[in-house]
Amino acid sequence: MEVVESIERIRERVLQLRAQGRRVGLVPTMGALHAGHLSLIEASRRECTATVATIFVNPAQFGPSEDFSRYPRTIDQDLAELRQAGADLVFVPRSEEIYPPGFSTFVEPSSVAAPWEGSCRPGHFRGVATVVLKLFQILPAHLGFFGQKDFQQALVIRRMVADLNLPIAIRVCPIVREADGLALSSRNRYLSQDDRHRATAISRGLRAARNRFLAGEARAELLRETVLSELRQSGITQPEYVAVADAETLAEVTEATAATVILVAARVGQTRLIDNLVLGDSNDA
Amino acid sequence: MEVVESIERIRERVLQLRAQGRRVGLVPTMGALHAGHLSLIEASRRECTATVATIFVNPAQFGPSEDFSRYPRTIDQDLAELRQAGADLVFVPRSEEIYPPGFSTFVEPSSVAAPWEGSCRPGHFRGVATVVLKLFQILPAHLGFFGQKDFQQALVIRRMVADLNLPIAIRVCPIVREADGLALSSRNRYLSQDDRHRATAISRGLRAARNRFLAGEARAELLRETVLSELRQSGITQPEYVAVADAETLAEVTEATAATVILVAARVGQTRLIDNLVLGDSNDA
Repeated sequence: MEVVESIERIRERVLQLRAQGRRVGLVPTMGALHAGHLSLIEASRRECTATVATIFVNPAQFGPSEDFSRYPRTIDQDLAELRQAGADLVFVPRSEEIYPPGFSTFVEPSSVAAPWEGSCRPGHFRGVATVVLKLFQILPAHLGFFGQKDFQQALVIRRMVADLNLPIAIRVCPIVREADGLALSSRNRYLSQDDRHRATAISRGLRAARNRFLAGEARAELLRETVLSELRQSGITQPEYVAVADAETLAEVTEATAATVILVAARVGQTRLIDNLVLGDSNDA
Repeated sequence: MEVVESIERIRERVLQLRAQGRRVGLVPTMGALHAGHLSLIEASRRECTATVATIFVNPAQFGPSEDFSRYPRTIDQDLAELRQAGADLVFVPRSEEIYPPGFSTFVEPSSVAAPWEGSCRPGHFRGVATVVLKLFQILPAHLGFFGQKDFQQALVIRRMVADLNLPIAIRVCPIVREADGLALSSRNRYLSQDDRHRATAISRGLRAARNRFLAGEARAELLRETVLSELRQSGITQPEYVAVADAETLAEVTEATAATVILVAARVGQTRLIDNLVLGDSNDA
């Protein structure tokens, strides 16, 4: 596994792989890898013949009061895990390589970026879309792999690829969860033992809502209340949002269907967590 | 020369050309071709082994009160001229092919898009940058050819290519002028005979300013006044702007150098014209 820092070199290597007829999969990450990331590497290895991971904590997607500076950085362990998982190349650029002086062109993401995370984290998806488009240009992969954990992000990226005709196909892979349901996240390591326990209310609430839906309840407001109730019982009284929305447009719905997603964002202690569940998706949670 | 309407087909054809080892040049146009456009085809043919032109009157770069609907459309003549000039492929998409329902991801152009044209035509460069990025993704050319007539546009595109790591090189080709100095433009055909005559004041003013610069005058305000005076003598008393600016940042300067550009936009009759001159560029005007 080769670790590359420069844009010029990684582009050259990916073009070589393509010239050899390899099908190239790209797994963009911010490091602090967990089994969710590694499932993306596995998905790429199943479908592609070369897998490139990137590790870049992207300053453009953090707000001024967010956790950019304290975001976990575990590069040595990340590289060991990527090697173990079978990645062929890892791109680890310095920030100045990605954002040189004078940088000022951005991607203005689609309307699906506006609500929920977009409204809680102004500028977040602009930063995400911009760096992902840059990575797609730097590393011309055939397929890009993203996690469903960041449901709205995956939608923003799929919409960007369609709207801007980017020559790459996007795969969105299932959420990987702890045994007790907590969705894996690099930020879980911030949780105290007590908060770690309370955080399970999020996936429990999502499962409970899906069970009510499968039992015939389609009223979105009642499904939403099911989640809120579970959160309240764990002392999470002010989630940032619990949204029952169309899985393609993210517009709120009043009647749920199999193509409805429930999105949750909540602070547990000092840690902001997100999770989601598509009601018709029987593989998750 | 093959004329292609669909994204899928033009991408396939360009990828075939690349696979054959051809060096592909791209010349994006809005049609209504004149000798300026044809000079871009020639420049591409000098440097490349396959030349692809596009004809698309891009609605996203016109403001609501601008001339989108009456912009000249001369497709049959355009195709004849492109064939004659030696283009290999022409991409002529319908609007719905480029902007299908739900389209909502844009390029937010760099800070060089803000002043001058950007301030007179809000949203113009956003529309330009978005469609050009899309064309670069649809038709993966090695080189893109643009005219210096749209000086700020060329800068916006060069900046976009650098900032977003687009794998294409940009060539900016000299302005083509009528014998009396008027810069060629598809909009010149809107001019009445009288306005056509008055319009020569723009290039005359630019030349006069450069001559003063070459004679030792570096004070930007006096060079600007030279242009304004020439315009006034032809009855153009309220140009939209006459800017003496750094040719890379487009920030106004007080002392001119060889790397200073003078940019002009003015309405002559009902027709909005633009022109420019880099003071150290001895090839123009």
